[in-house]
Amino acid sequence: MDILFIGDVVGSPGRDMVQEYVPRLKEKYRPHLTIINGENAAGGKGITEKIYRSFLEVGAQAVTLGNHTWDNREIFEFIEEAKYLVRPANFPENNPGKGIVYIKLNQTEIAVINLQGRTFLPAIDDPFMKADELVAEAKKRTPFIFVDFHGEATSEKQALGWYLDGRVSAVVGTHTHVQTADERILPKGTAYISDVGMTGPYDGILGMEREVVLRRFLTGLPVRFEVPKSGRTQLSAVLIHLDDKTGQAKKIDRILINEDHPFYS
Amino acid sequence: MDILFIGDVVGSPGRDMVQEYVPRLKEKYRPHLTIINGENAAGGKGITEKIYRSFLEVGAQAVTLGNHTWDNREIFEFIEEAKYLVRPANFPENNPGKGIVYIKLNQTEIAVINLQGRTFLPAIDDPFMKADELVAEAKKRTPFIFVDFHGEATSEKQALGWYLDGRVSAVVGTHTHVQTADERILPKGTAYISDVGMTGPYDGILGMEREVVLRRFLTGLPVRFEVPKSGRTQLSAVLIHLDDKTGQAKKIDRILINEDHPFYS
Amino acid sequence: MDILFIGDVVGSPGRDMVQEYVPRLKEKYRPHLTIINGENAAGGKGITEKIYRSFLEVGAQAVTLGNHTWDNREIFEFIEEAKYLVRPANFPENNPGKGIVYIKLNQTEIAVINLQGRTFLPAIDDPFMKADELVAEAKKRTPFIFVDFHGEATSEKQALGWYLDGRVSAVVGTHTHVQTADERILPKGTAYISDVGMTGPYDGILGMEREVVLRRFLTGLPVRFEVPKSGRTQLSAVLIHLDDKTGQAKKIDRILINEDHPFYS
Amino acid sequence: MDILFIGDVVGSPGRDMVQEYVPRLKEKYRPHLTIINGENAAGGKGITEKIYRSFLEVGAQAVTLGNHTWDNREIFEFIEEAKYLVRPANFPENNPGKGIVYIKLNQTEIAVINLQGRTFLPAIDDPFMKADELVAEAKKRTPFIFVDFHGEATSEKQALGWYLDGRVSAVVGTHTHVQTADERILPKGTAYISDVGMTGPYDGILGMEREVVLRRFLTGLPVRFEVPKSGRTQLSAVLIHLDDKTGQAKKIDRILINEDHPFYS
Ligand SMILES: [Fe+2]
Ligand SMILES: [Fe+2]
Ligand SMILES: [Fe+2]
Ligand SMILES: [Fe+2]
Ligand SMILES: [Fe+2]
Ligand SMILES: [Fe+2]
Ligand SMILES: [Fe+2]
Ligand SMILES: [Fe+2]
Repeated sequence: MDILFIGDVVGSPGRDMVQEYVPRLKEKYRPHLTIINGENAAGGKGITEKIYRSFLEVGAQAVTLGNHTWDNREIFEFIEEAKYLVRPANFPENNPGKGIVYIKLNQTEIAVINLQGRTFLPAIDDPFMKADELVAEAKKRTPFIFVDFHGEATSEKQALGWYLDGRVSAVVGTHTHVQTADERILPKGTAYISDVGMTGPYDGILGMEREVVLRRFLTGLPVRFEVPKSGRTQLSAVLIHLDDKTGQAKKIDRILINEDHPFYS
Repeated sequence: MDILFIGDVVGSPGRDMVQEYVPRLKEKYRPHLTIINGENAAGGKGITEKIYRSFLEVGAQAVTLGNHTWDNREIFEFIEEAKYLVRPANFPENNPGKGIVYIKLNQTEIAVINLQGRTFLPAIDDPFMKADELVAEAKKRTPFIFVDFHGEATSEKQALGWYLDGRVSAVVGTHTHVQTADERILPKGTAYISDVGMTGPYDGILGMEREVVLRRFLTGLPVRFEVPKSGRTQLSAVLIHLDDKTGQAKKIDRILINEDHPFYS
Repeated sequence: MDILFIGDVVGSPGRDMVQEYVPRLKEKYRPHLTIINGENAAGGKGITEKIYRSFLEVGAQAVTLGNHTWDNREIFEFIEEAKYLVRPANFPENNPGKGIVYIKLNQTEIAVINLQGRTFLPAIDDPFMKADELVAEAKKRTPFIFVDFHGEATSEKQALGWYLDGRVSAVVGTHTHVQTADERILPKGTAYISDVGMTGPYDGILGMEREVVLRRFLTGLPVRFEVPKSGRTQLSAVLIHLDDKTGQAKKIDRILINEDHPFYS
Repeated sequence: MDILFIGDVVGSPGRDMVQEYVPRLKEKYRPHLTIINGENAAGGKGITEKIYRSFLEVGAQAVTLGNHTWDNREIFEFIEEAKYLVRPANFPENNPGKGIVYIKLNQTEIAVINLQGRTFLPAIDDPFMKADELVAEAKKRTPFIFVDFHGEATSEKQALGWYLDGRVSAVVGTHTHVQTADERILPKGTAYISDVGMTGPYDGILGMEREVVLRRFLTGLPVRFEVPKSGRTQLSAVLIHLDDKTGQAKKIDRILINEDHPFYS
């Protein structure tokens, strides 16, 4: 089984990249499952129902989120009905939405889990304990378990990767908006990368208007982060190949598309 | 001019990699300048005079540091005499050591600057203002200015890269111990990468004993981080090519050596 | 010389308390100087010109601020003209406004300095170094120097108090919105209190709507903090008595006015 | 029922104050229950079995802890056997020790709960959820429930106070080492204070050697915090009076003993 995962989609430049390249990536790699992290899809913060649907229409079967899950208030209106929308599972028990989703693929199922780190991020429930709980649940149904771990600190991400090695098919990091070059198959068969990177503006800072972020660092004054309306863009993704029987990962490849790394079909 | 930069060397496994591969990398790429980040070289925290000297002997002309600069107390005994040892320049004015060093290469000089970020790290002086000051000083002597920006947050690192674009030859990130795949030449000629990555144990967490780091995350109990004594290792580096006249960067390439990415001479 | 200092005024309930009690406190204690911290005066965040003027009219001669200085955008329109408005001095050099103000009282002057801490607050310039600089400047003009240190951590506040002991007349803390009971005269003559406390709603959380803050802690969801429109209120202040010749503090008394601690004229 | 609670005892100066004043306070106020927070009792960090026993011998029936619980490694040897030692209940499930203890007093029992905040402190389990769970458990046995909430942020402490108002007898804060002046009986009958303050050196910073803490702030260099061996000392405490039938609080009084606030028997 092959999984294509697209890293944090930022605003309309990111959504445009999804519309343009997801079909081409699907044609080239023929993944069985496509997942998109959409936590920044609506103007850089959160997601709307329309955007969620557009991701499904372009060929994603699941959409994961992160710390910006709740930032566009529309989320509260559609999250309960959105079957394939996964928010970090370790938010408090009674929060809206769900942290695990099962996708049916012919005879089999794949579990898609979203977790959020706590290092340099707000304190929520323990992602390691929540992972234990959800992995145990998913194991009863399927050997194919995919984890999007949304976190800041490389230590916490590597720790969860090693913690789940051999228990899940893949742990892919999101949130820093910078793709890391440490993709690998861990010794017991889990595909791992610290961060898939961001899909959106190529010349911003984490996908946001450069001048505004710089002003923030230089003055300490409050600013309003904006996604640049024009300019060069990029797409960040990984392609993971799993053993069809065991669910173990056999291969993980980074994908980076921008002017410096053109796409070849 | 070509610069080889080796990312955070961790403990004896990292030092062994330096001894084994720096000569081979120098032979292969023939860099004019080799710089090593040694902030974790002594047992994972800080550096000793002996290690500093061994880095010069193996062919480095400058050694940069970071937030662990002061963690091995021996530093206070030799930092003032260590001509090619550079600690983050934005520590308070009267701290021991220096944040900029000039290396003579035939007719020319290259300035090596070390700065430390403040996002998710202790509050020290403003790295942006300190960069302005040091770059203005260095510009009077040379167009070749190399910056090792030791920081946690991708936002702050990208911000400094763009802030210095066109004013320095290179801004390379260190500290997260994970190599990023975002190396590029910014529009005005500055080579940039968010993090060069770590040189040391390949199967630890950030180069530290895995079980210990995991125990910390799982229990919240205090632990003593140790560098694993045996096991697989890796080296992380970048190679940067500068225009000999303007000091502008023309090329930046990532180097990653481990069992999954073998070295070819 | 006697100084009356009113702690962080929060929204209209806080402003109402100022209008009602500052005249009565002035009548009772006859302070030579009245200072109000107004960083939360406009709806809980920042200050407007109208509010600033109303504080002067009710009898304050200086208004200090804090981390919320810039949160009401009107500040950028009047801060440069507002002669008696003091914002944290250790914001970057070119930020609008000033961090020290001199108030003329008959034959003498008093310097009012505002500084902001960096522990658990955004990284700005070093408050200790900035204090050295401003105190040296002020000392040339007057022995009466008053410091409002706006900070979160008790360690940093006590550290600045001891650091400036004997060099300034008073270091009073603000920002935590809870009055501390550690007011004292330090051995070399500086009046000190870790936090003066808040002036505003008595039954909120730090002066904010209780249910909203609680929801934040219970769910991790984004909320919009609001100042309660009705309900019981309080005023927090200190009264400091200085030696007329040396500027040394002789006495510091806490003032707390609420239903549990009624005001007696 | 009357409860005497002694705030964070720091090192030998703090222990000396306990030995000297707890007997005198007990004689003066005749509390039915005495509780001591001992998280800093052993050299400023953690507690030993000998110290724990000395607290029981001087008349405490329970000893609470905090973020320094695990810092003296001796704790792991005696915590399981120490019947009246309470560590923050919201550390992960399988950590050693317990977060609730029941003290028998004649016909009745009192539950003593220790919780730790997460704002500006390491991420552990949710103190609000853990409080719900433990309070529900304790309610089955007794209406007398005492909570030591060890936390940094005034917002989180006030939030827990209001959250538990009417459900527990008292929520007293510890950890900042500075006594607050906001003691009160909340509307539904819970005694509350944001922080009881520290018992130990009077002229240190939070009870630690002043010069060392200052050096840390001024240089950013690593330092070794030490408790001053000599000098003036203080004791911080609260006395809480509960209704014998309902367990509701009727009165809370601050106690502060130092050279500026002498003890009168
Ligand atoms: Fe994101
Ligand atoms: Fe994120
Ligand atoms: Fe490092
Ligand atoms: Fe570092
Ligand atoms: Fe405030
Ligand atoms: Fe504030
Ligand atoms: Fe403490
Ligand atoms: Fe503590």
